[in-house]
Amino acid sequence: MSHIKLFIPGPIEVSEKTFRAMCTPMIGHRGSEFKKLYGDIQPRLKTLFGTQRPVFLSTSSAWGVMEGAIRNLTIKKVLNGMCGAFSDKWFDVSKRCGKDAEALQVEWGQSIEPEMVRAKLSEGGFDTFTLIHNETSCGVRNPLPEIAAVLREFPDVLFIVDCVSSFSTQSIAMDELGIDVLLTGSQKALALPPGLALFAVSERAMKRAESIKDRGYYFDFVEFAKNQEQDMTPSTPAISLIYALQSKLDDIFTEGVDARHSRHAALNAQVHEWVSARGFEFFAPEGRRSLSLTCVKNNLDIDIASWIKRLREKHSFVIDGGYGKLKGKTFRISNMGDESSESIATLLAALDDTLE
Amino acid sequence: MSHIKLFIPGPIEVSEKTFRAMCTPMIGHRGSEFKKLYGDIQPRLKTLFGTQRPVFLSTSSAWGVMEGAIRNLTIKKVLNGMCGAFSDKWFDVSKRCGKDAEALQVEWGQSIEPEMVRAKLSEGGFDTFTLIHNETSCGVRNPLPEIAAVLREFPDVLFIVDCVSSFSTQSIAMDELGIDVLLTGSQKALALPPGLALFAVSERAMKRAESIKDRGYYFDFVEFAKNQEQDMTPSTPAISLIYALQSKLDDIFTEGVDARHSRHAALNAQVHEWVSARGFEFFAPEGRRSLSLTCVKNNLDIDIASWIKRLREKHSFVIDGGYGKLKGKTFRISNMGDESSESIATLLAALDDTLE
Repeated sequence: MSHIKLFIPGPIEVSEKTFRAMCTPMIGHRGSEFKKLYGDIQPRLKTLFGTQRPVFLSTSSAWGVMEGAIRNLTIKKVLNGMCGAFSDKWFDVSKRCGKDAEALQVEWGQSIEPEMVRAKLSEGGFDTFTLIHNETSCGVRNPLPEIAAVLREFPDVLFIVDCVSSFSTQSIAMDELGIDVLLTGSQKALALPPGLALFAVSERAMKRAESIKDRGYYFDFVEFAKNQEQDMTPSTPAISLIYALQSKLDDIFTEGVDARHSRHAALNAQVHEWVSARGFEFFAPEGRRSLSLTCVKNNLDIDIASWIKRLREKHSFVIDGGYGKLKGKTFRISNMGDESSESIATLLAALDDTLE
Repeated sequence: MSHIKLFIPGPIEVSEKTFRAMCTPMIGHRGSEFKKLYGDIQPRLKTLFGTQRPVFLSTSSAWGVMEGAIRNLTIKKVLNGMCGAFSDKWFDVSKRCGKDAEALQVEWGQSIEPEMVRAKLSEGGFDTFTLIHNETSCGVRNPLPEIAAVLREFPDVLFIVDCVSSFSTQSIAMDELGIDVLLTGSQKALALPPGLALFAVSERAMKRAESIKDRGYYFDFVEFAKNQEQDMTPSTPAISLIYALQSKLDDIFTEGVDARHSRHAALNAQVHEWVSARGFEFFAPEGRRSLSLTCVKNNLDIDIASWIKRLREKHSFVIDGGYGKLKGKTFRISNMGDESSESIATLLAALDDTLE
């Protein structure tokens, strides 16, 4: 079927195979078939999360778990690392949960650096720190291992990491880095439809959660753990999306996790090469650029909206014209999901064809 | 494709047509196509909700909105009408949100009656009342219009109604009854896969929500309203399920809403007739029985688990063997979704065939 193909940074193109898996007939979510499905995907999810901890499935978008992490873990004060639309919003969400929150803000397009985190945490009073690994709105990839090393200097501060748009495109070793909550969503690098969030919680974070009284129910980490012991979820799960996830894990482990990471790096380099060759600049600094999407500065002052319109009409592709206040000032190209060097080459040729 | 067909009270059988709709290629959730989809389903959702208010789409199961209603609306104290597993749990969830909550408890299988609600609310101090219209765990249908009339005597008490397993099987006139929050899920009477909750909020409830500070973000009613003005959702929506919902609304309005209600009443009567003819008794009292499922008392003391096993193996049908503490003491048959008198007759014949 011919359709508009998305190269925006999520949702992205969903394969026919994934859709077929989604059409598996319904099963009861408290029965043996569901438990088998849940159990089947656990080992591979743990590998991708780099953890020995269970991986929970939340029937929500990632924001639900991002809010849940605050409700479950912040008692004293949360520090929010902020470098774009989504990480900025996490600060706002923290306050809306009635929590004391402080901003560690850099300019959109700049990265959160380890020494900034150290300086801020040294002021004391914090018990949680949130970081978006790959800030999707401006293509910034924060230096996760280096920041994780700083966090280990502050053993009372739990480290909450959103890797929605980087998950499965590069290695993120949750346990090794000492990450306390690692969370992602279904509709970005996993190339599933939206509606499912995945997350894992360290043992010490789970202990902290147990000590908090008004953490609620729907995103209660302790409920997730309790149900997980029986290979179930607290509330009715998005069964179709979990079948799709199972199918996608088959894809990922057939390709090989390392091969997948290499593919994403190569596709990203392919886009970068095009960006430079056309005289465009990158929005994020060298060494701090996302591997799964590219945020390009509109330094050539082109009319991005009409370019995207032409691209869509002539080639049935869509890229993103800039998020929020960056609209028209940047554009973003995703290389997430099932793309190949051929499909990215086709996109880039189409971009050339429609760029005036 | 041959598969096990579910006659449990949710999730239930999903049609091929619905699955096809779910496989519509991805679209961006902040673009014109999504807005068109969202706008397209609004008028029909309003009709089904019996409201002039917008109908919000939450990427969650119904529990998310059930918790959200408490967080958004309870300031003083919530009264929870409790007559089964799910309504009992709402009391627990209310407390977990750090709210003052009181139980209006009847035996499982009995109904919440208007005079009980009046007596309790007359004690004063409440600002919210929760009711599950159709308590799925034990097949009780509470007298909604009569209870709504009582609620109108207490103008400071907001009326929160879960109609997850009754929605679209009978008329529920939200505005006329003065319901402040009406909520449902996708995987029961709507015969969609789980992962989507639908709800509407009265104007006065929205005002109350605006006055509460720590209501959070993910289930924040005010955020839903703000995004709805642009035909969008606060967080990334479950796009595939919304396509499925659109397809299901086509089904419902092609059949006709009244015809659909009549069909469900007739199918329910067909099951009831079988129950009585076989010498079984109903778990809920006359006049208080659900129209979308039947909870049957195991007065004949049969081995329900092995019966269901035979039914499954020989006929590829599944009914439910009792929820929680009612396991083995009751069984439940759903007549939700796309069933016809023929398909229900086939099920009942299979039940006869395997009943020893």
